[in-house]
Amino acid sequence: MKDLDSLGLRHQSGRLEILDQTRLPDEEVWIEVPHPEVMIECIKRLAVRGAPLIGAAAAITLARFAEDGASPVAFFEIAKRLREARPTAVNLMWAVDRVAFSGNDFTVKEVVAQAEEIFDEDVAECEWMAEKGAALIQDGDGVLTHCNSGGLATCGIGTALGVIKRAHQKGKAIHVYVDETRPLLQGARLTAWELTKAGIPMTLLCDNMAAHLMSLKKVQKIFVGADRVARNGDAANKIGTYGLAIAAKYHQIPFYVVAPTSTRDNSIETGLGIPIELRKESEVQLGPNRTSFPAWNPAFDVTPRSLITDLIMPKEC
Amino acid sequence: MKDLDSLGLRHQSGRLEILDQTRLPDEEVWIEVPHPEVMIECIKRLAVRGAPLIGAAAAITLARFAEDGASPVAFFEIAKRLREARPTAVNLMWAVDRVAFSGNDFTVKEVVAQAEEIFDEDVAECEWMAEKGAALIQDGDGVLTHCNSGGLATCGIGTALGVIKRAHQKGKAIHVYVDETRPLLQGARLTAWELTKAGIPMTLLCDNMAAHLMSLKKVQKIFVGADRVARNGDAANKIGTYGLAIAAKYHQIPFYVVAPTSTRDNSIETGLGIPIELRKESEVQLGPNRTSFPAWNPAFDVTPRSLITDLIMPKEC
Repeated sequence: MKDLDSLGLRHQSGRLEILDQTRLPDEEVWIEVPHPEVMIECIKRLAVRGAPLIGAAAAITLARFAEDGASPVAFFEIAKRLREARPTAVNLMWAVDRVAFSGNDFTVKEVVAQAEEIFDEDVAECEWMAEKGAALIQDGDGVLTHCNSGGLATCGIGTALGVIKRAHQKGKAIHVYVDETRPLLQGARLTAWELTKAGIPMTLLCDNMAAHLMSLKKVQKIFVGADRVARNGDAANKIGTYGLAIAAKYHQIPFYVVAPTSTRDNSIETGLGIPIELRKESEVQLGPNRTSFPAWNPAFDVTPRSLITDLIMPKEC
Repeated sequence: MKDLDSLGLRHQSGRLEILDQTRLPDEEVWIEVPHPEVMIECIKRLAVRGAPLIGAAAAITLARFAEDGASPVAFFEIAKRLREARPTAVNLMWAVDRVAFSGNDFTVKEVVAQAEEIFDEDVAECEWMAEKGAALIQDGDGVLTHCNSGGLATCGIGTALGVIKRAHQKGKAIHVYVDETRPLLQGARLTAWELTKAGIPMTLLCDNMAAHLMSLKKVQKIFVGADRVARNGDAANKIGTYGLAIAAKYHQIPFYVVAPTSTRDNSIETGLGIPIELRKESEVQLGPNRTSFPAWNPAFDVTPRSLITDLIMPKEC
């Protein structure tokens, strides 16, 4: 497989590595992925994350496994397990299906070509979304985002955060408000890190401060990513997105969902059909003081199309 | 001064102590308050907190200072500093004004009587609110609350959490959903602790999960406290309350604000006039991983009367 390079994943001279996102922003530690088992574990524990990126990571892992001479039985067994590593982001299933369960009897070379295409297409779609979305941002805008949908979540510049970064690259003076995104703080750890690296002015806030920020008229646009978009346009994304969309509607602030084609799931009619991953309660219990009180930990929620001003998706526009 | 006893403050045989709420639920540590300086510090760093309780604590502190023979100059100087220890909860200003700045030239005995009355009235008003609110709760209800408005926040059973505890005492089968309440986790640390002590079934959730929980129809009523209620009924409360109220309206879930008379500020026409305390950014930066990204930390927000189904306040009803 050819060399590939993104903020959170790289393949160089036959060596596949992912940036351990659980250790950001404290440390930049790259984990070598010599075997698919390592990738399955990395996806489950969110060392590699972001709907488009886990799709590409799974495809690349399968391509390398094929190149390493995996038997068909082992290949399809690993494909199945990668596909099931996380349940909500459809990009993961889409990518695995494309390289392993398309109905085509792919050669190793064809599997590799599919994985490379998945990566390259995501880079290209990110570019398209970044341009399309950046055009919506005005000089002086305050822009709010939730979770991380940037270079760390994709193969390219990002989805929602890609839009924001592109607006800055185009010289628009923006200020970014970053929801910390409990429980795992992808906003506070990853988005804040990416924005700081890119030199974009930002302010971190707790998720529950966003509505108050809106009431102060500090937010002109909201951009978020998605993990699965149903046929009717309902979008699953990181927990907290739905409440944000309700507050945006109340304040009449434009709310955009930015996602690549691979996030679309036309097999599901509405958001009600999207499976929501429930994760361990310890992620919620782990605050500055760990507690043992019973906790609920849905990792995603669904925002109905009626609360979304526009979907910025390559094949929609 | 007579003996006084509440969950978070006690006066016994001339010794005043507060339960250090920053160390709950890990440890129950009582701090002796031999001098007003200690109380000022405890109020500022939230060792003692809750709008009604900090009002009573300030009044009791002043009464003891007077009993200890404080000079008028020292007494009024301390009164002024207690009054300014935190800016949003009007109960603090109201209580200090009542014992120190009422225009009456109170004797020491009268100052003590005022402080005792403030405590006793709060206990009685909590009882009234608990009864009034509990009548609204049906058997089988899921009830959501934010921050802590229980025995730890008042001299009695609590305001919003008092309502919930009373419904349970009356034998209603309820389940309580507790917002963790970032950044300082008063829900996860204090409300969860109070409910567990009282044997009331509860589930902890991150603030950004509340809207999703509502969409799943798990929440039939929402009760929150308040730190200041303007003349028109707009209510300041812990940051996150406003977003919760918007989500409640969207889901047509009754949203009640429960507060004693001392929370009313008729000198302010609308919520726009309520000063919102901004606290240190380090409170927001302190997640499981501490970061140094710039952060915003408003401690309260304002919920407009239009989003409040009813105000449960003794003098309103």
